Amino acid sequence: MPELRRDPVVGRWVIVNTDDSMTPDAFEKEEHEFTQAEMCQFCYGREYQTPPEVDVIRPSHTAPNTQGWSVRVVPNRFPALRIEGNLDRRGIGIFDLSNGIGAHEVVIESPDHFKSMADFTEQEALNVIKKYQSRYLSLARDRRFKYIMIFKNFGESAGASLEHPHTQIIALPMVPKYVLEEIEGAQHYHEFRGRCVFCDMMRQEYEDENRIIVENIHFLAFCPFVPRFSFECWIVPKKHVPDFGSLLEEEQVHLGAILREVLLRMKVSLSNPAYNYYLHTAPVNYDGQESYHWHIEIVPNVARVAGFEWGTGFYIVKTRPSLAAKFLREASVPVAK
Amino acid sequence: MPELRRDPVVGRWVIVNTDDSMTPDAFEKEEHEFTQAEMCQFCYGREYQTPPEVDVIRPSHTAPNTQGWSVRVVPNRFPALRIEGNLDRRGIGIFDLSNGIGAHEVVIESPDHFKSMADFTEQEALNVIKKYQSRYLSLARDRRFKYIMIFKNFGESAGASLEHPHTQIIALPMVPKYVLEEIEGAQHYHEFRGRCVFCDMMRQEYEDENRIIVENIHFLAFCPFVPRFSFECWIVPKKHVPDFGSLLEEEQVHLGAILREVLLRMKVSLSNPAYNYYLHTAPVNYDGQESYHWHIEIVPNVARVAGFEWGTGFYIVKTRPSLAAKFLREASVPVAK
Repeated sequence: MPELRRDPVVGRWVIVNTDDSMTPDAFEKEEHEFTQAEMCQFCYGREYQTPPEVDVIRPSHTAPNTQGWSVRVVPNRFPALRIEGNLDRRGIGIFDLSNGIGAHEVVIESPDHFKSMADFTEQEALNVIKKYQSRYLSLARDRRFKYIMIFKNFGESAGASLEHPHTQIIALPMVPKYVLEEIEGAQHYHEFRGRCVFCDMMRQEYEDENRIIVENIHFLAFCPFVPRFSFECWIVPKKHVPDFGSLLEEEQVHLGAILREVLLRMKVSLSNPAYNYYLHTAPVNYDGQESYHWHIEIVPNVARVAGFEWGTGFYIVKTRPSLAAKFLREASVPVAK
Repeated sequence: MPELRRDPVVGRWVIVNTDDSMTPDAFEKEEHEFTQAEMCQFCYGREYQTPPEVDVIRPSHTAPNTQGWSVRVVPNRFPALRIEGNLDRRGIGIFDLSNGIGAHEVVIESPDHFKSMADFTEQEALNVIKKYQSRYLSLARDRRFKYIMIFKNFGESAGASLEHPHTQIIALPMVPKYVLEEIEGAQHYHEFRGRCVFCDMMRQEYEDENRIIVENIHFLAFCPFVPRFSFECWIVPKKHVPDFGSLLEEEQVHLGAILREVLLRMKVSLSNPAYNYYLHTAPVNYDGQESYHWHIEIVPNVARVAGFEWGTGFYIVKTRPSLAAKFLREASVPVAK
């Protein structure tokens, strides 16, 4: 008998195949191949092909927009939103619209075209987290923006058009629907029970145990009881903190380490799948967010979304989260350097 | 400058590329190929390979589950939900769940393996609509169900695992999130303005004109001002009716005709793309739905959904709806028989 499960934050129902759960080898997977290395605009020596860097980690003896950097942040050459101008909110008949104002940046995570976050050293992962946070804080100072979305597409079937390791950041002038739903859900839960729903979820994960993948001193990684996708993983800070911007320096290395480890376990268990991850955090320049709890959601691209999901917002999850966690937990991975 | 547009029903914001909109030839498209005809369980002579038919259009001299039918409805061999049992709603810690009770049926639309709705005659399209409605009404009588979802996946990249023309019907024991959001949005709009938001949207479409694809006496087809996907099309009954179940017999033929025509225009404009469509209607066995207005949403599978969309619920629409409508309206299509 499949199970209907209800997400405790946003109230979404999903169908979980609890009996005949699909194991990793049953999914059709994209074989990741590198084909763009010869012409890659993100590699050493082609810094001139991107807009000038807005943030970077590089030795002090190297010049901006030349080789030598470890992590480099540049504006997206084909931005989804434009940085200059005013929102100019207006109506056309019954419709509301505004100019497409926002920022769209790319974090080039490493000079090594053939590496991915799963292969990084702890120092490399740390560098990426540092730039996530510094760009978040910098963009949050622009009062036109209400939300800073940090997200990664890895692999062609997960929407990546460039294969060089990179993350995208989009600063939005309004709080996106899914984040707003989570915030409202968390507020509602807090008003009702006086507790954070994400903190309660972590307590439940410790009690049930079988969905935990890995943890360290500051973070817990688990397969949520009500995912949208098979092998979906969440990374949640153990301490109740609404916004990613307040990440402490001593926590950065632990976030990099657990993100890297979960991705490596996913790479081993699911044969290097295409995936997306994104950071959910409290909005910026916005009130009423104390009951929220920031986190990262990682969704491997192992099943197609079709008419049923597009029409309902219901999802059919082929692998029981506890089974997915078991595969990820038991994957044989080397210890990070 | 891209535009941010807000959906008037559910409040979703999307980014629309209004300046450099993508034309049909700019999208990567799946070439639809037939490879399953030799073994197809939905073809004549293999009726024994499916569960017994629950509804059918066939001459009276033919026996059930034999050849001769025009449209055949059978339970799905691999149902997402099970028909027998009770919901048994319960909690596990902070989580809510229930048994996966529901119905999952398949409407086999034609004996011709190589046809699709776009190629049907008016009579064939009408037969399909008749079976949509008869199954809807039949399943609605089961008081465990709250929503009857009728949807189609066409083409492998849109999630179709079988290529023989078919539609799926899933009866759900709860109202799905997206439908609930539309109902609440429509109620809210109705309380505020005393009018139906879908009726107002149609008035706006007539006024703006440039997003209309085609209409007939009972239905209007247009590219909505705030779509989630490029070339998204909606078919809306001109008369305010909350639920699909009340479709009148004289309206059936016009619904079949306009659905067929929009799909044919999409087939011509976008080189036979993969697509999904689904019917949004008021829930069954459920109160408070008078301000809702049923409709069909058609979403061609022309762009990938990635981390940004999964994380935000924002969508980036590469083709301005008025341009999409122009291509669809001007596509050269033969008149239906």
